[in-house]
Amino acid sequence: MSEDSILHKVLGRLHQDRDTVLGPGDDCAVLAFGGKWLLAATDQVASGVHYDPAATAPEAIAAKVLKRNLSDIAAMGGVPRWALLALAATARDDCWMERFFAGLEATARIYDVSIAGGDLGALPDAGRREYAALTILGEVEETKLCRRDRAKTGEAVMVTGELGNTFASGHHLTFTPRLAEGRFLAGEWTHCMMDLSDGLGQDLRRLGRASGVAFALDGAQLPCRTGADRRGAMGDGEDYELVFTVAPEKVEKIFAAWPFATPLSVIGTVTPGEPGSWTLRDGDKTLTDREIAGYEHFRA
Amino acid sequence: MSEDSILHKVLGRLHQDRDTVLGPGDDCAVLAFGGKWLLAATDQVASGVHYDPAATAPEAIAAKVLKRNLSDIAAMGGVPRWALLALAATARDDCWMERFFAGLEATARIYDVSIAGGDLGALPDAGRREYAALTILGEVEETKLCRRDRAKTGEAVMVTGELGNTFASGHHLTFTPRLAEGRFLAGEWTHCMMDLSDGLGQDLRRLGRASGVAFALDGAQLPCRTGADRRGAMGDGEDYELVFTVAPEKVEKIFAAWPFATPLSVIGTVTPGEPGSWTLRDGDKTLTDREIAGYEHFRA
Repeated sequence: MSEDSILHKVLGRLHQDRDTVLGPGDDCAVLAFGGKWLLAATDQVASGVHYDPAATAPEAIAAKVLKRNLSDIAAMGGVPRWALLALAATARDDCWMERFFAGLEATARIYDVSIAGGDLGALPDAGRREYAALTILGEVEETKLCRRDRAKTGEAVMVTGELGNTFASGHHLTFTPRLAEGRFLAGEWTHCMMDLSDGLGQDLRRLGRASGVAFALDGAQLPCRTGADRRGAMGDGEDYELVFTVAPEKVEKIFAAWPFATPLSVIGTVTPGEPGSWTLRDGDKTLTDREIAGYEHFRA
Repeated sequence: MSEDSILHKVLGRLHQDRDTVLGPGDDCAVLAFGGKWLLAATDQVASGVHYDPAATAPEAIAAKVLKRNLSDIAAMGGVPRWALLALAATARDDCWMERFFAGLEATARIYDVSIAGGDLGALPDAGRREYAALTILGEVEETKLCRRDRAKTGEAVMVTGELGNTFASGHHLTFTPRLAEGRFLAGEWTHCMMDLSDGLGQDLRRLGRASGVAFALDGAQLPCRTGADRRGAMGDGEDYELVFTVAPEKVEKIFAAWPFATPLSVIGTVTPGEPGSWTLRDGDKTLTDREIAGYEHFRA
């Protein structure tokens, strides 16, 4: 069973407090607290899955687990505030630990996040191995909240940045979470946004299912990273870019208003159809979502 | 380097937002948000460290990771609200996953917590192995907040429940987090409380260091669980009971007012002395904190 199937099955039926504005299933949960909206998400990295433990500096591992979570805050249109880290490791020398936390702190300062709590745990067995889970807390105004179930037929599908070839290029470690871009877009330009962690093909499937829409994508418009073909742009994963939908009359204006160096692309249109399905026009062929698989962290 | 040393070294110097009322080092962080105080803590369990994967039902594993966190909320005098779970596992059958989440949900309902978010990740290698990190969010009134740096010389040291023999007895899985007891105690009876996760000896060392005090304990008053001697009560760990300090004139009254079946014991006195040190009177001997080691999850 895939991660999506498991999450859908088990998390969808969990009882929610009446102050849970948005429960499991989006990039963050939205929790009403003290008259404000708190964003909360948790995300994890494991050595050997999300990075090569022999080749990755501890600072980069720490930065990655924090930035993955910051990308989730960006997708909701929010501002990050605090993070809590659970780190489990087989015996590592003190230097590794110090470098990990130095990297975490350096990244936290860049994005104005406080590491408010932590827990260290052991892992059994020999060999160097780590596992880090980070919870991010942030906030968002009700007028700015973006969610993945708000796409409407006829809207343009847009993405920030470039897609694909994220491992060989090192992008999966060096990426910049699109917090500034997310804040700019939220509310004024869109209310439907998500971050791309598992590949555009897979993530659009989720967005489409949540919104009850399909997509017609134009392969020629895909912003492929150097070294990535269209298949890679659809399926490599770990892009940490934002995908969002925009009313057609706003498309020209958004390019005029866009204040960032980050590339911005219109890659297709929201259409009626089987929710979550998409087609990709690629020269004289049209590929479907069944022909390009997304990256899945978890295969049960 | 021990967990304490690492945490002290790396977490103590992290920059904190001005809305961080209490940062790393206590059972929960306290975060000012929307005019209220949010409690946040993260805690983890790993197969082979916190439970025997061959002998522990998935429901019990899920319950344990949630209840460990609830115990942290109890220690602050707070009320739990939401939880987020990160679960990484090597391939498990769907039935295991379903049972894990059913156990999580059942426990969450008992304590009125909403599981507001989750993430599933993969672990490399063969063999059955899981790792779960849970973040708890709760709230506490400023007047009720309990912290570990508030003990004063002359106060009585008290504990809830029984201590020791927590593994063989199954207590480390079946325990009840002392949320009701924590709420009762908080504010009216104490402002200094922590939960016992690593053994009374180790945890008192932390409380004493944070408060700048020492302790004189009476071995005859230790509430040893069946099968535990005094050494076990001091060092077995995973008790998930509350230790707190009470003004001497309130000790008699607290026994009169105590509405719970949970045992309540006075085990000693807060004294001046080397911060974090303690002595234990045991018949005609007096043991010191150097002679009884606490349980440590992590040895680097």
